[in-house]
Amino acid sequence: MEKQQLLYEGKAKRIYQTSESDVLWVTYKDDATAFNGEKKDTLEGKARLNNEISTLIFSHLAEKGLNSHFVRRLSDTEQLVRKVEIVPIEVVVRNVVAGSMAKRLGIEEGTPLVEPIVEFYYKDDALGDPLITEDHVYLLEAATSEEVESLKIQAKKVNQLLVELFAGIGVRLVDFKLEFGRTTDGELLLADEISPDTCRLWDLETNQKFDKDLFRRNLGSLQDGYQEILTRLGGQ
Amino acid sequence: MEKQQLLYEGKAKRIYQTSESDVLWVTYKDDATAFNGEKKDTLEGKARLNNEISTLIFSHLAEKGLNSHFVRRLSDTEQLVRKVEIVPIEVVVRNVVAGSMAKRLGIEEGTPLVEPIVEFYYKDDALGDPLITEDHVYLLEAATSEEVESLKIQAKKVNQLLVELFAGIGVRLVDFKLEFGRTTDGELLLADEISPDTCRLWDLETNQKFDKDLFRRNLGSLQDGYQEILTRLGGQ
Repeated sequence: MEKQQLLYEGKAKRIYQTSESDVLWVTYKDDATAFNGEKKDTLEGKARLNNEISTLIFSHLAEKGLNSHFVRRLSDTEQLVRKVEIVPIEVVVRNVVAGSMAKRLGIEEGTPLVEPIVEFYYKDDALGDPLITEDHVYLLEAATSEEVESLKIQAKKVNQLLVELFAGIGVRLVDFKLEFGRTTDGELLLADEISPDTCRLWDLETNQKFDKDLFRRNLGSLQDGYQEILTRLGGQ
Repeated sequence: MEKQQLLYEGKAKRIYQTSESDVLWVTYKDDATAFNGEKKDTLEGKARLNNEISTLIFSHLAEKGLNSHFVRRLSDTEQLVRKVEIVPIEVVVRNVVAGSMAKRLGIEEGTPLVEPIVEFYYKDDALGDPLITEDHVYLLEAATSEEVESLKIQAKKVNQLLVELFAGIGVRLVDFKLEFGRTTDGELLLADEISPDTCRLWDLETNQKFDKDLFRRNLGSLQDGYQEILTRLGGQ
């Protein structure tokens, strides 16, 4: 396998073509951004931590029968993934009220939800990734109704598996963001990454935060929090 | 019937108790507000125009079998309504993309929708009346799932009747906001007002605006636009 030209550079990753047409080469970056890019920093070690954690989580999901675009880890900061056409929807699953939901609805952060809630946000930086309803999804032609059903089913299954995984290491999975992509067969496959950049992860006992809110809210060392998650997951 | 103590003063109306326990006395105000109260003015004649238009529209809906809280017109600026417990949801129905939907989704204002879209906004000035999903409605305990179904069915029926009514007078019903209330029997009844304060109304030929966007966007005399709607509806 050979890394070829850069296809896309995002806030946290670079995506390269490879010698295989349906496989992409992902390199994680040390860059941290928040508030739609308004807050920025470079945090040494973040690339490795997210690559390792995402590798462990995608591997765990695959073991449990939930496939993703993840193919294999290449190095400390690199992995191979299947090429998919990303659906322009951020699928957010929430178990506890936090972040934008707390602000939007005026509910105290930390309030547990009786049932997990799945929300859709339109992936559009210029619009600020707005919350959208299912009718908006169809209006934007972002996904079909069959795809919306698949997104919701897969998101809830990922949630169930990850709530268990994290509970086993003393961590509360508060909420997380997923992205999905279409394979050439038209299948909707879990994509992007699952890491403390895309999840809220609180210590079950102390509510200590191990996620990107450390950076967003200046609560302490991001790397220490992410390393704690990696260590508890059995990584180094 | 006798007007008794003031129960509630909103941005555009005052609500008084009456000698009958289940009937309220509404007086419309000449006050205009926009952007959650940031823009304000007093526009002479607005109270009369909205009272007359709302009376005509609620009467038309009742003739077509769709009941509301409207009981009867009392004077130029006053009407009697049934007392209901207002559901804290603004139900918005859209036939054409405009206003906040155009901004949220990055779609050009004036784009027609293939099917009407119903949206829910949480009635909370402090939160800025945010867009919410059905899951948020249940989380906020703003309405039950049976009530949500009733809200959507009634909103679409109102839309069907009003699209026809306005098309008959050369006006495009772009979008509008409804509020509903619970009667003592637990029935969900259309409430509040339906007027150019709560609808976007564009001339079918010229797209001239006859609604509150005249005030919001400083496009001309609000009273002239509202009077045009009243006159075309057969009022004076």
